[in-house]
Amino acid sequence: MYQSRLFTKTMREEPSGEIAASAILLERGGFAFKNSAGVYTLLPLGWRVIERINTIVREEMNAIGGQEMLMPALIERRYMEATGRWNMDVGFRAHVRGEEDEAQFVLGWSHEDILAAMAVRFINSYRDLPLAVYQIQTKFRNEARAKSGLLRGREFMMKDLYSFHATQEDLFRYYAEVRKAYESVFHRCSLETYYTLAGGGVFTLQNTHEFQVLSDIGEDTIFFCKACGYAENDEVATLKEGAVCTQCGAAAVQKGKSIEVGNIFPLGTKYAQATGLFFADERGEKKPVVMGSYGIGISRLMATVVEIHRDERGIVWPESLAPFTAHLLLLDESQRSETDALYRRLRDCGIAVLYDERQGVSAGERFADADLLGIPYRVVASKKTAALHKYEVKRRDEQQERLVEESALREICRTKQQK
Amino acid sequence: MYQSRLFTKTMREEPSGEIAASAILLERGGFAFKNSAGVYTLLPLGWRVIERINTIVREEMNAIGGQEMLMPALIERRYMEATGRWNMDVGFRAHVRGEEDEAQFVLGWSHEDILAAMAVRFINSYRDLPLAVYQIQTKFRNEARAKSGLLRGREFMMKDLYSFHATQEDLFRYYAEVRKAYESVFHRCSLETYYTLAGGGVFTLQNTHEFQVLSDIGEDTIFFCKACGYAENDEVATLKEGAVCTQCGAAAVQKGKSIEVGNIFPLGTKYAQATGLFFADERGEKKPVVMGSYGIGISRLMATVVEIHRDERGIVWPESLAPFTAHLLLLDESQRSETDALYRRLRDCGIAVLYDERQGVSAGERFADADLLGIPYRVVASKKTAALHKYEVKRRDEQQERLVEESALREICRTKQQK
Repeated sequence: MYQSRLFTKTMREEPSGEIAASAILLERGGFAFKNSAGVYTLLPLGWRVIERINTIVREEMNAIGGQEMLMPALIERRYMEATGRWNMDVGFRAHVRGEEDEAQFVLGWSHEDILAAMAVRFINSYRDLPLAVYQIQTKFRNEARAKSGLLRGREFMMKDLYSFHATQEDLFRYYAEVRKAYESVFHRCSLETYYTLAGGGVFTLQNTHEFQVLSDIGEDTIFFCKACGYAENDEVATLKEGAVCTQCGAAAVQKGKSIEVGNIFPLGTKYAQATGLFFADERGEKKPVVMGSYGIGISRLMATVVEIHRDERGIVWPESLAPFTAHLLLLDESQRSETDALYRRLRDCGIAVLYDERQGVSAGERFADADLLGIPYRVVASKKTAALHKYEVKRRDEQQERLVEESALREICRTKQQK
Repeated sequence: MYQSRLFTKTMREEPSGEIAASAILLERGGFAFKNSAGVYTLLPLGWRVIERINTIVREEMNAIGGQEMLMPALIERRYMEATGRWNMDVGFRAHVRGEEDEAQFVLGWSHEDILAAMAVRFINSYRDLPLAVYQIQTKFRNEARAKSGLLRGREFMMKDLYSFHATQEDLFRYYAEVRKAYESVFHRCSLETYYTLAGGGVFTLQNTHEFQVLSDIGEDTIFFCKACGYAENDEVATLKEGAVCTQCGAAAVQKGKSIEVGNIFPLGTKYAQATGLFFADERGEKKPVVMGSYGIGISRLMATVVEIHRDERGIVWPESLAPFTAHLLLLDESQRSETDALYRRLRDCGIAVLYDERQGVSAGERFADADLLGIPYRVVASKKTAALHKYEVKRRDEQQERLVEESALREICRTKQQK
């Protein structure tokens, strides 16, 4: 893509009202635009990152038998009343103008209610179980103080997976599969997570689990053991900071702020009971379906990656999520036609290149923008390098450039998706 | 995919309250679920169709320089007040519980307002123009009578493209490009459309254009000439039914009901004026940016395809949009292991197969379901065909089966995307 044609421009100044480094960098780089408190547009660069995250998430969800679908945002009152969630403060209500006092919809902040009601049509027998469906969909939640940028939006993108089982044992078998799939998602997004014991809700069988990423901007606090990976959310913690880990005995427990990037809930039969979701078992006995639900905040995941992968000059995207693999900079007008040609050759062999061919932009500005945008490989074609028939390549996370020939450049730029 | 593992089941009865054939077939087949009037879930089969439509739409929008992004559904009052659209009845309002009387958001039913306000950050000079951005996003519109199923939802998926230009001439140059791209989208979805002159709105430069598909379920009426393809919406019609076409003189004008699957609007400078979106031209003079907007209703497009491509037994998906290419039916339990093996071989060579291996389902039910679901190639492996080392293949839109060997079967099933 020609940078001069890109819809967005970078901002030199910090946007007002943002505290989180991720929000500042994503807005300065032109990845996101804050429309209202907690409400963001994903601009073309940000959308490219989101698409790569979604591809990873879909691959992992499909691999554990998840079937993708899409549920609505408008959830009618009767669905939420059946499960006792109509009056929860987390939801926005929607109404037609002039009908303020009789809003009949809540904007979906989770979809157990409506999904269980639909599943009644499709699940009748033990032979129909187990099943798992998911969606990548926009959620709405009334966050009183939406101050963490894309880490906690009032409107945000979420992947929510739901599973249906005949027995609790089967739910917990699948729960372990989802845990592995989630760990794979986060690993492929270059995030280290702690699988963290957390509190149970009124609608869960027992404790739930969160995937927590250590970060000072996080709103959670966890106690964790670096040796064995065991962790507890401070809400339910039995671990003590500085004490020996009760699980492995091999290291001292540490305490840290963290961001919750995913969570998994063993729901049990509460939603099935509320919506009449029963199945006939092998003996023909009617039993309520056992459910689980499993979330990943997609836009929060993007922001978390930025919190972890950045330096004082900008974002340092992991190759698996970068909006482009290479950022080609034109430093010298006399090299324009040669660099144009290089751009086309790289693009034609399938490398995602952002080509900074803007006119009237200094070399310093180009370098600063490249650091801000954080594309993995910065490629420079100058008079000096052209004379050698070589190009200068620098990885965003390294200090030193390398001089390489075009064939080597292509090899370097082949995207290495983390698996 | 194993049909026994599919989340959905087909329904024999017609769903209550649906008039449109598309709504009845999509719900009976398990493509969609009506959650509320005008509010639908896209179930896994329907989502697969939507994904194929979206791939086509993205290819065509990218080909005319569209940059994909994603704007929010929550649009703050100030954006809509600036353009004079806050009090329009088409919108749903969203509020936090207890703040009914001071709703600060409308649920986006179109995004000119918020987009023009954002573009102020990115468009300063004539050098920044032209630009085009688009999104595939959920829209919300207050339809008093949502009676046409997915043809007119209160919540629905839409592709909206917006373009920015220095001059009206450049807008109309791009307008013609978008027309071609839209015609390509509809052609690839096996829809014949009339490019139809329609009324101008208060926010448009002049007349707008609609892409209309002839269908009795349509809510529009158009006058059209089959010879030259010229058409007018009855709102603005100068053509008369039965009279000779005023454009080509070669045929008599016809009149018909139709479904609007796309529309394009030359907006002019109204939104730029309202939001302060100005650019400096070559002489440094400040001028308002000229905008266009261009919509395709994605979920409506799916329903329209079903209206056009169906028979008395069910849907007849075009190959370019079908959720699977082949529907493999197991008719005889004694053939299960051979048919299982065939399924795996077809799947492993990249053919999208739905495999009906359900237990306790009669051959009649399997055939009826195959007709209802409308997958292009029905493949049957019976004792009779097995003895010949052949398979029976029938195209959904043909009467006659063919007996073919496996290599020929594979060749037939290679998806032929219409281009």
